[in-house]
Amino acid sequence: MTDKLTFLGLGVMGFPMAGHLAQAGYAVTVYNRTAQKAEKWLKTYGSARCALAATPAQAVCEADLVFACVGADKDVEDICVGEAGAFAAMKPGAVFVDHTTASAQVARAMYDKAKALGLGFLDAPVSGGEAGAQAGQLTVMCGGDQADFDQARPVMENYAKMMRLLGPAGSGQTAKMVNQICIAGTLQGLSEALHFCQSAGLDVEAVVDVISKGAAQSWQMENRAASMAAGSFDFGFAVDWMRKDLAIVLEEARRMGVSLPSTALIDQFYADVQA
Amino acid sequence: MTDKLTFLGLGVMGFPMAGHLAQAGYAVTVYNRTAQKAEKWLKTYGSARCALAATPAQAVCEADLVFACVGADKDVEDICVGEAGAFAAMKPGAVFVDHTTASAQVARAMYDKAKALGLGFLDAPVSGGEAGAQAGQLTVMCGGDQADFDQARPVMENYAKMMRLLGPAGSGQTAKMVNQICIAGTLQGLSEALHFCQSAGLDVEAVVDVISKGAAQSWQMENRAASMAAGSFDFGFAVDWMRKDLAIVLEEARRMGVSLPSTALIDQFYADVQA
Amino acid sequence: MTDKLTFLGLGVMGFPMAGHLAQAGYAVTVYNRTAQKAEKWLKTYGSARCALAATPAQAVCEADLVFACVGADKDVEDICVGEAGAFAAMKPGAVFVDHTTASAQVARAMYDKAKALGLGFLDAPVSGGEAGAQAGQLTVMCGGDQADFDQARPVMENYAKMMRLLGPAGSGQTAKMVNQICIAGTLQGLSEALHFCQSAGLDVEAVVDVISKGAAQSWQMENRAASMAAGSFDFGFAVDWMRKDLAIVLEEARRMGVSLPSTALIDQFYADVQA
Amino acid sequence: MTDKLTFLGLGVMGFPMAGHLAQAGYAVTVYNRTAQKAEKWLKTYGSARCALAATPAQAVCEADLVFACVGADKDVEDICVGEAGAFAAMKPGAVFVDHTTASAQVARAMYDKAKALGLGFLDAPVSGGEAGAQAGQLTVMCGGDQADFDQARPVMENYAKMMRLLGPAGSGQTAKMVNQICIAGTLQGLSEALHFCQSAGLDVEAVVDVISKGAAQSWQMENRAASMAAGSFDFGFAVDWMRKDLAIVLEEARRMGVSLPSTALIDQFYADVQA
Ligand SMILES: NC(=O)C1=CN([C@@H]2O[C@H](COP(=O)(O)OP(=O)(O)OC[C@H]3O[C@@H](n4cnc5c(N)ncnc54)[C@H](OP(=O)(O)O)[C@@H]3O)[C@@H](O)[C@H]2O)C=CC1
Ligand SMILES: NC(=O)C1=CN([C@@H]2O[C@H](COP(=O)(O)OP(=O)(O)OC[C@H]3O[C@@H](n4cnc5c(N)ncnc54)[C@H](OP(=O)(O)O)[C@@H]3O)[C@@H](O)[C@H]2O)C=CC1
Ligand SMILES: NC(=O)C1=CN([C@@H]2O[C@H](COP(=O)(O)OP(=O)(O)OC[C@H]3O[C@@H](n4cnc5c(N)ncnc54)[C@H](OP(=O)(O)O)[C@@H]3O)[C@@H](O)[C@H]2O)C=CC1
Repeated sequence: MTDKLTFLGLGVMGFPMAGHLAQAGYAVTVYNRTAQKAEKWLKTYGSARCALAATPAQAVCEADLVFACVGADKDVEDICVGEAGAFAAMKPGAVFVDHTTASAQVARAMYDKAKALGLGFLDAPVSGGEAGAQAGQLTVMCGGDQADFDQARPVMENYAKMMRLLGPAGSGQTAKMVNQICIAGTLQGLSEALHFCQSAGLDVEAVVDVISKGAAQSWQMENRAASMAAGSFDFGFAVDWMRKDLAIVLEEARRMGVSLPSTALIDQFYADVQA
Repeated sequence: MTDKLTFLGLGVMGFPMAGHLAQAGYAVTVYNRTAQKAEKWLKTYGSARCALAATPAQAVCEADLVFACVGADKDVEDICVGEAGAFAAMKPGAVFVDHTTASAQVARAMYDKAKALGLGFLDAPVSGGEAGAQAGQLTVMCGGDQADFDQARPVMENYAKMMRLLGPAGSGQTAKMVNQICIAGTLQGLSEALHFCQSAGLDVEAVVDVISKGAAQSWQMENRAASMAAGSFDFGFAVDWMRKDLAIVLEEARRMGVSLPSTALIDQFYADVQA
Repeated sequence: MTDKLTFLGLGVMGFPMAGHLAQAGYAVTVYNRTAQKAEKWLKTYGSARCALAATPAQAVCEADLVFACVGADKDVEDICVGEAGAFAAMKPGAVFVDHTTASAQVARAMYDKAKALGLGFLDAPVSGGEAGAQAGQLTVMCGGDQADFDQARPVMENYAKMMRLLGPAGSGQTAKMVNQICIAGTLQGLSEALHFCQSAGLDVEAVVDVISKGAAQSWQMENRAASMAAGSFDFGFAVDWMRKDLAIVLEEARRMGVSLPSTALIDQFYADVQA
Repeated sequence: MTDKLTFLGLGVMGFPMAGHLAQAGYAVTVYNRTAQKAEKWLKTYGSARCALAATPAQAVCEADLVFACVGADKDVEDICVGEAGAFAAMKPGAVFVDHTTASAQVARAMYDKAKALGLGFLDAPVSGGEAGAQAGQLTVMCGGDQADFDQARPVMENYAKMMRLLGPAGSGQTAKMVNQICIAGTLQGLSEALHFCQSAGLDVEAVVDVISKGAAQSWQMENRAASMAAGSFDFGFAVDWMRKDLAIVLEEARRMGVSLPSTALIDQFYADVQA
């Protein structure tokens, strides 16, 4: 029975995700590169069954399931197979669930290394943002083996409203890329539309109210149009992650020989916003 | 009390819209350039209070409200102020409601001409497509005067679920442009995403099922992804209208000095689909 | 024998072009909407055989060849067939040579009207800019009939280094569009390249010096890179004409069903520069 | 005095480049991964002073200057510092001149490794294509130290008409990127222009003849327009290299935070051509 868990990476996403697991009563050992965040986490969520660890290796040795949510490819490699990485210390049969948004290539590479060590591995990137993580309403897109997914699912349920195994290793990351391509197009359309709307002197709120009832509706329109129109969209944050994600998408598309003209263009516009 | 109505243009949209008015019990006189469609309409929806007319002028002379849904700018001018056009024959105080998607310029020009003749004029483009027209679930974006809108609203309710006056003459058309810019971006993102998804060998239905629960969700994804993935999207029709609409959008943006890079690019991609 | 000429429109281009004709000894009657420019022209270039006229009609009545270089479509219609326009006053057999950059449609329409009146008409847009006009080194792209071209050619030689009849009416304008599409692509590449070069901290002049010897060479690179790098490119002016020209191009491409994705995108970038 | 040379990589470019060196009388030792090409080279160009070697290390041990022209980043690393790589076997003070088109990062990394071993290193990508290599008319863009450049220059003169040191390590590769950005824009403009020209029914050759005398002129137009119009452009080959080069460009732009919208778009169009 799954009872002992590890969570690696207590950033914007990992912090509340790990919190839901602690609140559900699991014994959660956490690791964060910058120790203060782990201490803060322990104060916020930690029960008597929770603990801190100084390295991934120390954090995982008793865990049935290990969750991670770090930055990008290199970071995933670091915590899995780097110095004092998790894999070498994990119990046989334990499953590593990687919630990081990373490349499908790194997912497949980690899957292979895990399997060779008798471990399970799921690439399991999430969508839903900080708000979704806090509310425990994330969507999780998984790639890997059914048995590993079945083992992780009941635990992930504590922070996810939707989980699905979409195919072999890498499929979760690829599905997340599909997600990001959709978002990029929708957001670009929305941003050009709002710019046009304001330039035409129309009442943005009224127009959005009307058009969000029909074929132009999107989650982004419902949740972002108001702040975008007010110019208070926190670009600094969102844009950096978006560019990271689109870099992964475009790299994968290049490998597959798939043309994504508008996605590539939008990615360049983000460079201007970043600058 | 509004009782006698006219409907000009019984195409894909106008045919069922006028039908809803007849079914609601109004006395509806219809005109269609190609007479057979008008005859078919009369057989389908016509009550004893309904009639055909041979020209816009003949159709409108007793009406309190005149509705139209024709092709584009030139067509609006034709039926309003062309030979045997409606304006010259309308009763003082009657209101012309134009459901055509056209330019804001033609809307403002027709509004001015109508007012000079003691008539009302609303630009009132719709969204919702053929299905929305048949189900009486359209969204109507209006520009013009409050009094004219108040007069038209209870009648439009027979085919619309959402109606709003968004500002002076032209505002309805401008709002529709905002709508189309959003749709263009969302559809392009969706189409690149599905292409990517299929090329990666993922199960499109499963991926769409998962991502449509989160930040990538859109009306287009929910209603079009399946048929787009199946390749059975009726491009022939949709693309022609979309190009017409985007031509209006880009012309207006040019006049306003607004830059719509991704919309302009997408419009060009449609040229390839048309070819 | 051609001896009496008219020049309509003494703007940046027409002023020096007409000057070359006067200096070649022709009897040149000029008309400019704003009379001061015509007076200034007469002071600068006018011989005893030159004269001013108050309308296009007055200017053309004795001319064998009428040249014009005005703004855009509407202006061409104005001076040709508007009130006191040239056509109604021209001698039978006289040829109207339009150096304006305009649409192929207006060229074909004016050609038809001219022919119906027993006149000749050439659409004859130029390239080479103000410097080319002053130096008499323009390139002239012509559409129309061979006989009309043969009559105009020896006179145009006074300000052109290259003239060619490219096909029936409209072909000159279409060739000019081909020219502008090339320039738009080259300039955009150049501007992204210089931006990249400067951001990388390289010496722009040295890099341009090297690469302009090979496959990246272009007239634009040789003539514009230095001022573009210095940021002293007179965008205000050039961009307005470029947008006018690209609007004509994109409108024509739309009519033909031709996709010009990168040209359409670049056109939108100019909107930002204009703003 | 420089007399003994090595050339690594006898592909489309390296084969004739090394040939010029042999023909100039130098003692040239060559290495090619696939041995047959080296044997063919020896038959074609080899003098009594020329020889084959089985590895980079064996090829370079007596050389004053080592030239290489291989595929991409990984290949440069292989032949420099991989197993039996050149660096470990080179004489102190010898200079490695890398003609491969690769990233500025790999250039800087190899420079650092070379310097640490008491060697010289120049990143020295070329432009001019196969024809330029055969004719000995290449352009060479160099990054590195002046002394190393001074040592290599007289030898490179045998296949280059233009060589320049543009700054520290990486500057040659960065300049080549500037070159490729220009070419991408120019080629895209040209290809849209020719497509438009043909669709309009104009005589492409005649139009190109006229416009290549003015502001639309480019090396690409003069050298490629005819074959592009004839559809006989060898896309298969050129497009693969172009995509490799643009991938390097876009990666570097991402690192620098520079936005290259039109270049990124064009790169995606190549994906379609490749497919
Ligand atoms: N934020 C969002 O809205 C969403 C984010 N994501 C994805 O989730 C992932 C995490 O995002 P988020 O939580 O916002 O990011 P944060 O930057 O807030 O957190 C990153 C976490 O990863 C740790 N980390 C990074 N690199 C390493 C490394 N090499 N070794 C050890 N630990 C490392 C950081 O440690 P330290 O504290 O020491 O820096 C930190 O705990 C990213 O892949 C992101 O793309 C997905 C959906 C939404
Ligand atoms: N400038 C350049 O570098 C190039 C320009 N061209 C093309 O040449 C044409 C002229 O350009 P340019 O000389 O720079 O423009 P200017 O604006 O300097 O001159 C325009 C001329 O046209 C006259 N004009 C405009 N509209 C009318 C009208 N309705 N009735 C009568 N006269 C009118 C103006 O009269 P008024 O003085 O009263 O305003 C003026 O003499 C344009 O089509 C442009 O695209 C082509 C190649 C290069
Ligand atoms: N072709 C062109 O028009 C131009 C090319 N360039 C650049 O020049 C470089 C070479 O191009 P080109 O000559 O056309 O390419 P080719 O593919 O014809 O030749 C590549 C050469 O590199 C060798 N090579 C590749 N990888 C390795 C490796 N890992 N170890 C050892 N040898 C290796 C190949 O060996 P083998 O024979 O065993 O495959 C071959 O000799 C590229 O960077 C290209 O971008 C620059 C300007 C123009």
